[in-house]
Amino acid sequence: MDKQVKVALDAMGGDNAPVETVKGAVEAVNLEPRLKVFLCGKEPEIRAELAKYQYNSDAIEIVHCSEVIETAEPPVKAVRNKKDSSMVKAMNLVKEGTCDALVTAGSSGAFLVGGQIIVGRIRGIDRPCLGTVVPTVSGVAFLLDCGANVDAKPLNLVQFAQMGSIYSENFLGVKSPRVGILNIGAEEEKGNALVKETFPLLKELTNINFIGSCEARDVCLDGADVIVAEAFAGNVCLKTMEGVSSALIKKIKGAMMSSLKTKIGALFIKSALKKTLKSFDTESYGGAPLLGCKGLLVKTHGSSSSRAFKNSLLQCIKFTDLEINEKIRQQLTETEE
Amino acid sequence: MDKQVKVALDAMGGDNAPVETVKGAVEAVNLEPRLKVFLCGKEPEIRAELAKYQYNSDAIEIVHCSEVIETAEPPVKAVRNKKDSSMVKAMNLVKEGTCDALVTAGSSGAFLVGGQIIVGRIRGIDRPCLGTVVPTVSGVAFLLDCGANVDAKPLNLVQFAQMGSIYSENFLGVKSPRVGILNIGAEEEKGNALVKETFPLLKELTNINFIGSCEARDVCLDGADVIVAEAFAGNVCLKTMEGVSSALIKKIKGAMMSSLKTKIGALFIKSALKKTLKSFDTESYGGAPLLGCKGLLVKTHGSSSSRAFKNSLLQCIKFTDLEINEKIRQQLTETEE
Repeated sequence: MDKQVKVALDAMGGDNAPVETVKGAVEAVNLEPRLKVFLCGKEPEIRAELAKYQYNSDAIEIVHCSEVIETAEPPVKAVRNKKDSSMVKAMNLVKEGTCDALVTAGSSGAFLVGGQIIVGRIRGIDRPCLGTVVPTVSGVAFLLDCGANVDAKPLNLVQFAQMGSIYSENFLGVKSPRVGILNIGAEEEKGNALVKETFPLLKELTNINFIGSCEARDVCLDGADVIVAEAFAGNVCLKTMEGVSSALIKKIKGAMMSSLKTKIGALFIKSALKKTLKSFDTESYGGAPLLGCKGLLVKTHGSSSSRAFKNSLLQCIKFTDLEINEKIRQQLTETEE
Repeated sequence: MDKQVKVALDAMGGDNAPVETVKGAVEAVNLEPRLKVFLCGKEPEIRAELAKYQYNSDAIEIVHCSEVIETAEPPVKAVRNKKDSSMVKAMNLVKEGTCDALVTAGSSGAFLVGGQIIVGRIRGIDRPCLGTVVPTVSGVAFLLDCGANVDAKPLNLVQFAQMGSIYSENFLGVKSPRVGILNIGAEEEKGNALVKETFPLLKELTNINFIGSCEARDVCLDGADVIVAEAFAGNVCLKTMEGVSSALIKKIKGAMMSSLKTKIGALFIKSALKKTLKSFDTESYGGAPLLGCKGLLVKTHGSSSSRAFKNSLLQCIKFTDLEINEKIRQQLTETEE
């Protein structure tokens, strides 16, 4: 386990770049001597940020890029035209084998397109998918695909289920993870055409613990450890979670500040509540992996803090040590036989 | 506005039937002299419940039914075979014109099938859809289709948008409601094949205020007044809301009971918090209407209380008074011209 792990970090990606990206990189290399970070972005800006910190200078390398892909740009065009952007250059570092992994908080669209066009899929994987660790009442679950490939075919969902199961078992440490398919009812005959076609294929798989349908209501209520979905539905599920949590927390904060009495009560509850709500924050698990690509490509939230970048960089070491991509390769070869 | 409104209530539907159904019926007729309720179900059980209350006996009629459709039964088969069930008999009362509307907390599947097979669609409506009032930070929004017809075509979504807009404007009182299509990105080029095909059709409509895409994250954050979705995605959105709210409230309650200190704090906050969470409860708006059918067919939650039944019965009066189905008929004739 002494192997160095090299990660390309899109230093210009996200709302708080390069301040938080550089800070996260320094925190990560100071914590983990095996990590080497390639900071891709505008060199003068990155240097100015780096000057604030103490760190082993061998552990961080700057890869100068003159361009940045903006969130609003059409992804395919941006990836094709902006060859000197931080995102594209970071992708190329993974493609050519200089880096084992990539972390970005930049444009989701460019990330998904670049991952598939530049870095490329593992042989045998028809389409990659975006997985996300989501909070549940008693822990976390793994939801995929959260938006990489809409209008997927049954074969794709079957591969997502297997990749999700491997990620959950190895990375999240869930023994024999319960895999469910996101559905609008608990029974086998429920669902749309895609789910009905996919269901029997999942039942046939011997290398996952398929438990049947998982209703959206049960995703946060420990209904399954891995929830497989077509990208549109998966994205709706994930984004609804974010919206409802945000709305509900806003409402509760409002209630606590509504009178002198409630403000006093809030003082008593504050720290316990903060701790509870933190357990609903999955930042410690790193970012969302685009599974099925060569190397590890990780997308973190646009609003990521240095802590999120640090955790995503450490996630890359764990992912590499656990040889998750090798396990995916092996399992898919077995399935093909 | 002196017209009597006759509603068939599936007295055996829901977890707490017939106790809560009968109680809700009595509460509603005592509040609204124009209401007449036809309680469909097992006569001896209904009579025993009715004996507990004071009410105008002309306002409630019992329609004896020997059968009940269970939640787990395959819906099509149940609706075809159980001719003497409370759900089917209530549907027939609407079909034959004895009743203006129906309320049930019974099997969702049987409700959706029965509505379409027994009661039937308004002429010109290709498929009905299930609409639900959902809570937002500052009020409510109307989400449809929440599960009536999966794998819809663009034409269906166009009709859902128009029906949703009419319901929002008339029933919920929103002036020129902002209609959005549920999508996985804010831009027009985002989405799956169905959304991309539907988007330009919605843009062309002159009788709705179409504002473009609404991401799932923004449904609860006042992103639109009416959110149009294909049934699978709509159902995932709705059910995720329920699951996340339930998980989050469980967590927060746990935090408040975690120590003596927090318990004291909870005493100060309790009533304000209850009031806040109540604004996240949409029971006062009645149940979910299956729009596009003749008459009004309302589905309430399986766990409905008498209050939910009462509100759904009153909803039927408002819906009839506002002539919402006539407005739907008119607008669709205009669109066809």
